[in-house]
Amino acid sequence: MIDIPDSSFPRVVIVGGGFGGIQLAKSLRDKEVQVLMLDKHNYHTFQPLLYQVATGGLEPDSIAFPLRKIFKQHKNVFFRVANVEKVNAETNTILTNIGAVQYDFLVIATGSTTNFFGNEMIENHSMPMKSIPEALNLRSLILQSFEEALLKDSINAQEALMNFVIVGGGPTGVETAGALAELKMHVLPSDYPDLDLRRMQINLVESNERILSSMSVQASEMSNAFLKEMGVVIRTNDAVVSYDGHNAVLRSGKTLETANLIWTAGVKAAVFEGLDKAEFIRGGRVKVDTYNLVTGYDNIYAIGDVAAMITVEYPNAHPGVAQVALQQAKNLSKNIINKINNRKLKEFKYFDMGSMATVGRNKAVVDLPYIRFQGFFAWFVWMFLHLLFLVGFRNKMVVLINWIWNYFSYDRGTRLIIRPYRKNKIIKEEEIELSTKS
Amino acid sequence: MIDIPDSSFPRVVIVGGGFGGIQLAKSLRDKEVQVLMLDKHNYHTFQPLLYQVATGGLEPDSIAFPLRKIFKQHKNVFFRVANVEKVNAETNTILTNIGAVQYDFLVIATGSTTNFFGNEMIENHSMPMKSIPEALNLRSLILQSFEEALLKDSINAQEALMNFVIVGGGPTGVETAGALAELKMHVLPSDYPDLDLRRMQINLVESNERILSSMSVQASEMSNAFLKEMGVVIRTNDAVVSYDGHNAVLRSGKTLETANLIWTAGVKAAVFEGLDKAEFIRGGRVKVDTYNLVTGYDNIYAIGDVAAMITVEYPNAHPGVAQVALQQAKNLSKNIINKINNRKLKEFKYFDMGSMATVGRNKAVVDLPYIRFQGFFAWFVWMFLHLLFLVGFRNKMVVLINWIWNYFSYDRGTRLIIRPYRKNKIIKEEEIELSTKS
Repeated sequence: MIDIPDSSFPRVVIVGGGFGGIQLAKSLRDKEVQVLMLDKHNYHTFQPLLYQVATGGLEPDSIAFPLRKIFKQHKNVFFRVANVEKVNAETNTILTNIGAVQYDFLVIATGSTTNFFGNEMIENHSMPMKSIPEALNLRSLILQSFEEALLKDSINAQEALMNFVIVGGGPTGVETAGALAELKMHVLPSDYPDLDLRRMQINLVESNERILSSMSVQASEMSNAFLKEMGVVIRTNDAVVSYDGHNAVLRSGKTLETANLIWTAGVKAAVFEGLDKAEFIRGGRVKVDTYNLVTGYDNIYAIGDVAAMITVEYPNAHPGVAQVALQQAKNLSKNIINKINNRKLKEFKYFDMGSMATVGRNKAVVDLPYIRFQGFFAWFVWMFLHLLFLVGFRNKMVVLINWIWNYFSYDRGTRLIIRPYRKNKIIKEEEIELSTKS
Repeated sequence: MIDIPDSSFPRVVIVGGGFGGIQLAKSLRDKEVQVLMLDKHNYHTFQPLLYQVATGGLEPDSIAFPLRKIFKQHKNVFFRVANVEKVNAETNTILTNIGAVQYDFLVIATGSTTNFFGNEMIENHSMPMKSIPEALNLRSLILQSFEEALLKDSINAQEALMNFVIVGGGPTGVETAGALAELKMHVLPSDYPDLDLRRMQINLVESNERILSSMSVQASEMSNAFLKEMGVVIRTNDAVVSYDGHNAVLRSGKTLETANLIWTAGVKAAVFEGLDKAEFIRGGRVKVDTYNLVTGYDNIYAIGDVAAMITVEYPNAHPGVAQVALQQAKNLSKNIINKINNRKLKEFKYFDMGSMATVGRNKAVVDLPYIRFQGFFAWFVWMFLHLLFLVGFRNKMVVLINWIWNYFSYDRGTRLIIRPYRKNKIIKEEEIELSTKS
């Protein structure tokens, strides 16, 4: 049993401390509900900046925020580190590694994990980047590859270690490719004077006919031009079909020899077991109605990446972005209170605030509802909005200092191999449970 | 073979990128020698602030500095990540996991590691704090203990999880005890409102009759008073003789039930094999003459913690502090050049600049050659000098921001369990080799 105080108010259990989960708990602060948040980590991760951790631009601690600290003034919000294993909807109970707990309302805000589309070989040898430990592993791998290249006599072996293949031309893939290109231009040549850095190759593979395909054509074309200018080889209409740790075979037939395959090609919803009556769409997302209620249930909700709300405007559900999660959380918080008080519920309506991606210094692309722009001003807007949404004042300050430092010094200060990455590792650190069953 | 360019100048191989190793390489910059530095990490660690990483006050990346970055303007300095395994003095060769390399001068600057004095049970269950991964493990353990305490029904089990035993009353032990006391006072109560934090205990065990025994009696007494005021239980004239992960048995017969034993009670020199003719003193330190030359050899030197220079003034060798390493490095750099040019060598003479330790906010003790002071001003001096000696401008800025933030908010921003600590872990992460033999 998870031991939290009894309350006369209905209990809302939120699984997941991402953008949606946090926003929901905040919006339910001081309302007539008891809130229990469960997350497998004790911190919130600001995922949009993970690629900067992986490429040595930011320290991991400045894009993470302790969940307990967010809720310390929220007397009705409780938090436990827990892995949720299963829901038993008939008894309104969820089962976790630290015991079971009953809910009146259950909100699934578990987000998404990397989707390897069933390809185990790629899963075992490529680097995903959805969590801080994964970003740190990637940071170690990048630096280890260069240290190893120094030890090779054959040019071929050196090139394989300095060849980077990024699969997936969405914002994460584009931003990672750009960051690697900046390392190549400004940081690595002075770090590794013994290596011929011109032989370092950065490949960006995208199955669609254009990168950033969820954005405007203008944004795609401009980011394409930016990346080419920075020396990135863009391979659209192609895909990686196999990778054994050495050779990445492309759908087009080409083989790229590389020690570094970064996989940002897809996500799938991270759902626990027991939702037997629910319906799922492609990528494992749980179907919800326009109130975020999961099909088949009357007190189980899903928000954000994990939820699939099919509407006329969004026949393939909303995009898996922070704004959807935040807006759904706000709407759901009102509906939970409305439902408790038997008031009319409010349908969710997504207000698309646009999207953006950064390619490098002074180079970003921004699509807003009525205006699109690229270049220096877009890059500035990108930084401003990321700082705005980053949780925590200390974090904002440290990130700002790092950005200013990186901008003027052309440097990346945190290129540290603190925990070397073990290839073909048996233990996946992310899967280790914090606590034993109680 | 470690492949570095041929040079007509003599080759100085420095093993270890701590204070001494870095200073020596810097002092040999642009001199008529070729320098090869080897370290098992790709970064320098600022050890004096490790305890702040362990207690959530600083991010690990701000007390680490990439070694390659230090040497990027030093055309005659080369760097490789390597574990040195053995020296073969007859052929002037050292053997490492990445191959062998010849030297004209070898300088051992490998520093020290934790000394468990042969007690394997304590080694397996206690937390050392000599490296960044170790400090991060400790940070995880501290936070995991509180998360676990929340899940316990028995008060006894909760208390064991909230009981901290720090063994060793030197600067590291005193600083860690103080930092934990501040967590107890200012951070943990609002993070864990469900726990009765008054039951959290911090014990500091010191075998000597006073803590900070290497400093003045005045400093000892004042730090003792500071710690008592902050609620730390000080147990002088005592020691931990066994610890099985649950019960720490003291020499005095008392048993402390604790899940958290932090071991700062001793260090031993970190020397590789093959120094057959050398002499060693207590703690494994290598005997050197007043020119830092290792006894029995004519081109192998040792500096810093690993070296034992026995003089009239220092019959037990110099203390294992940064200043000794820095000053020996500077002197040795001159002597290496003198020796090459057949000039007279200069004996090492230690200029003791004093020592200091911080206990908590506004509370530190400073012993300078002609003056001793404690309290707010001492604390300010402590911070100033630590910022001064911290490597890297970015690091200084980030640490300063964190200190200002921590001071005014009474907060510790980085209380994150990024990689959960696994008790009784089989793999020691620090021991994983970066590269395979080439």
